[in-house]
Amino acid sequence: MATTLRSFIDVAPESHFPLENLPFGVFKPAHGAPRVGVAIGESILDLSVLEEQGRFRFPEFQDRKIFATSALNEFLSLGRPAWRRARTVIQDLLAAENGELRDNATMRAHAFHAQHDVTMQLPARIGDYTDFYSSFHHAHNVGTMLRGPENALMPNWKWLPVGYHGRSSSIVVSGNDVRRPQGQIKPPDAEVPIFGATRSFDYELEVAFLMGPGNALGEPVTIDRAEEHIFGMVLMNDWSARDVQAWEYQPLGPFLAKNFCTSISPWVVTLEALEPFRRPLPPQDPEPLPYMRAPNDCTYDIHLEAQLQISSMDAPHVITRTNFQHLYWSVAQQLAHHTVGGCNLRPGDLLASGTISGPTDDSRGCMLELTWRGANPLRLPNGETRKWLEDGDTLAITGWAQADGFRVGFGEVTGRVQPAFTPGQTP
Amino acid sequence: MATTLRSFIDVAPESHFPLENLPFGVFKPAHGAPRVGVAIGESILDLSVLEEQGRFRFPEFQDRKIFATSALNEFLSLGRPAWRRARTVIQDLLAAENGELRDNATMRAHAFHAQHDVTMQLPARIGDYTDFYSSFHHAHNVGTMLRGPENALMPNWKWLPVGYHGRSSSIVVSGNDVRRPQGQIKPPDAEVPIFGATRSFDYELEVAFLMGPGNALGEPVTIDRAEEHIFGMVLMNDWSARDVQAWEYQPLGPFLAKNFCTSISPWVVTLEALEPFRRPLPPQDPEPLPYMRAPNDCTYDIHLEAQLQISSMDAPHVITRTNFQHLYWSVAQQLAHHTVGGCNLRPGDLLASGTISGPTDDSRGCMLELTWRGANPLRLPNGETRKWLEDGDTLAITGWAQADGFRVGFGEVTGRVQPAFTPGQTP
Repeated sequence: MATTLRSFIDVAPESHFPLENLPFGVFKPAHGAPRVGVAIGESILDLSVLEEQGRFRFPEFQDRKIFATSALNEFLSLGRPAWRRARTVIQDLLAAENGELRDNATMRAHAFHAQHDVTMQLPARIGDYTDFYSSFHHAHNVGTMLRGPENALMPNWKWLPVGYHGRSSSIVVSGNDVRRPQGQIKPPDAEVPIFGATRSFDYELEVAFLMGPGNALGEPVTIDRAEEHIFGMVLMNDWSARDVQAWEYQPLGPFLAKNFCTSISPWVVTLEALEPFRRPLPPQDPEPLPYMRAPNDCTYDIHLEAQLQISSMDAPHVITRTNFQHLYWSVAQQLAHHTVGGCNLRPGDLLASGTISGPTDDSRGCMLELTWRGANPLRLPNGETRKWLEDGDTLAITGWAQADGFRVGFGEVTGRVQPAFTPGQTP
Repeated sequence: MATTLRSFIDVAPESHFPLENLPFGVFKPAHGAPRVGVAIGESILDLSVLEEQGRFRFPEFQDRKIFATSALNEFLSLGRPAWRRARTVIQDLLAAENGELRDNATMRAHAFHAQHDVTMQLPARIGDYTDFYSSFHHAHNVGTMLRGPENALMPNWKWLPVGYHGRSSSIVVSGNDVRRPQGQIKPPDAEVPIFGATRSFDYELEVAFLMGPGNALGEPVTIDRAEEHIFGMVLMNDWSARDVQAWEYQPLGPFLAKNFCTSISPWVVTLEALEPFRRPLPPQDPEPLPYMRAPNDCTYDIHLEAQLQISSMDAPHVITRTNFQHLYWSVAQQLAHHTVGGCNLRPGDLLASGTISGPTDDSRGCMLELTWRGANPLRLPNGETRKWLEDGDTLAITGWAQADGFRVGFGEVTGRVQPAFTPGQTP
């Protein structure tokens, strides 16, 4: 594995943000407008300051303000050569042996912020958000609950990455609370549906990729060029109301069960940073149709966890331990499939994996699977149990790729469940 | 019915755009940037010119440029009182008895454009697009084909407006060609799916409403306030690939079958203009749950047509004649349901009805129903037949509300089918 790079900024061995990572995000300092930065250790390097100093005078930037802005979309549209150049500038400037910033206290004071002093924002204006269903074990578990093990997977599942369009407007950044949604629910023994707050509030552990340059309407992205269009990845919690979903989803798919809130982590980990963690894609049988075959297609070795903390607990408890490699379909296959009919993607579009579950009981990525629809409640360290998430519970998802001597981490996406809305309430 | 209003601009009796209508749209003149206008007869009144003259100095406008811009979103966010004030200003200025603009040739030359001289654009930046499934006859016909007449409707259909999230990026304005999409198709007699251009290319006649002010995440819009959030309506053609849809849609709904292109008409007809055409909502049985009940809820009497012209024909032929009143769920019910779980809508979001079919054979709003999945091909006046749309076919949807002496019309949404993409082709 790669030798550890050293920065003059202190980076603890278990930090998610060493010099090898440099994820991009949008932050708002205590005073001043939102702008783009990269995370390093427990700090943020303010890229708008470097931009102001003229350190990104590359042809793609064309003297535009790429980093002194409240969203990554402009930067995303530039493409991989520009992203790589920017990364090199930043990595050089932060390196232990470079005195330029290291030895200039005034400039350092201007260019660095402590992460705990700022407010993170959504990294991009997300035009369209797509959610796939790409984990075999998740699809198989859910299908088994609904139709039994013989018919668990729909006939199409191994032929195409099943996906659907989600709701962009309700995507929020980590740290935002999530309100328990209300909706129509049809209890199994009831004649007619009732209206009320969901009784089966769930999380879904997912990873999503953020689009760089898009494609023109009507013009597919071929799988061998898919990576040119992908900037990087974030963690996602696709909050779900299972009872609402069960009643509404036929025949057009999930709607209110998912569109009340979706949370993502603020730092976008680039494909450059994930390069050392590429792994061969697991075997696919049947062989995918030609438009989804690429000789060097890959997955990534990223450890993923979900942690639950309820109010009676002092610390979060890990309830899911899984890995990005459990996904059946690659991100390149998802992208090639998404565009093969001509659908146009735009910079800032977000494409999520769907719940990532592994083969073991503790690698299931949502309560629906962990408790088998509530039949086997989770037992927490302090003796309390959970069939579903309850008001006041905090669910955090974290993840990292581990190398010899450093981690390329995603930080976390966290949210706490708030009671359902009551009219007259100030939201 | 209301007495006809007269403008000094010539408006033919069958024109869609009399003084009673005044739909808003975004147009690009031959020279100059896109801006907002209203249609009157065969002309457009340029609202950016009136704005420049200070004719919209209302508190809501706050000296911002609302009309000298390429999308209606700012105007949409202002809400109904501002919309009404703007309408009054425009209607007064265009009235036959008002000499201010009528008698000022210089100002007229500056403020009016011929519709045939400009390029219409999408009326708004559409953040999220939702498609409902609100026509009983459409849902019943499709369900009968798939599951037989006894199980035609899913158990949820009469309890909630079934809907799903569509693709925003591929919404185009009328006049754009649509490329035949490719995708995975599983012929009924085949063991495995094949890849190719759709063999069952369809249109769907729909009407969509455009959101004004939105709601905060987590805070539902109650049905009695729904209309405050709705600016107006457009026609929509939700192009569909039925074979792709049949193979992919289980269990998460339509994806590539719909996301390759959706066309809308450029002129947004306001609820003010549609006021005289309000009609009582048809009876609903079972009674909807309380959050979808409003004493004055309504539908609208809007005649709708689809016209097909194939290359061997001299003129379009009407293949669907239907009416907005055939929708089971009202727009207020759709909006109340959409937000009841806390989903936030934003100005410019588009919410479509789904295919609008009536009870008669000729009121079916798509080829799937008209030809009963290709079993009964359509016979055209020149003897040719169609099971589905073929390359070179042009499909137009038009619609209007007819009063005594005038029409409040929507113009049209039209598009021609182009052959499937081949690699290396310039899109």
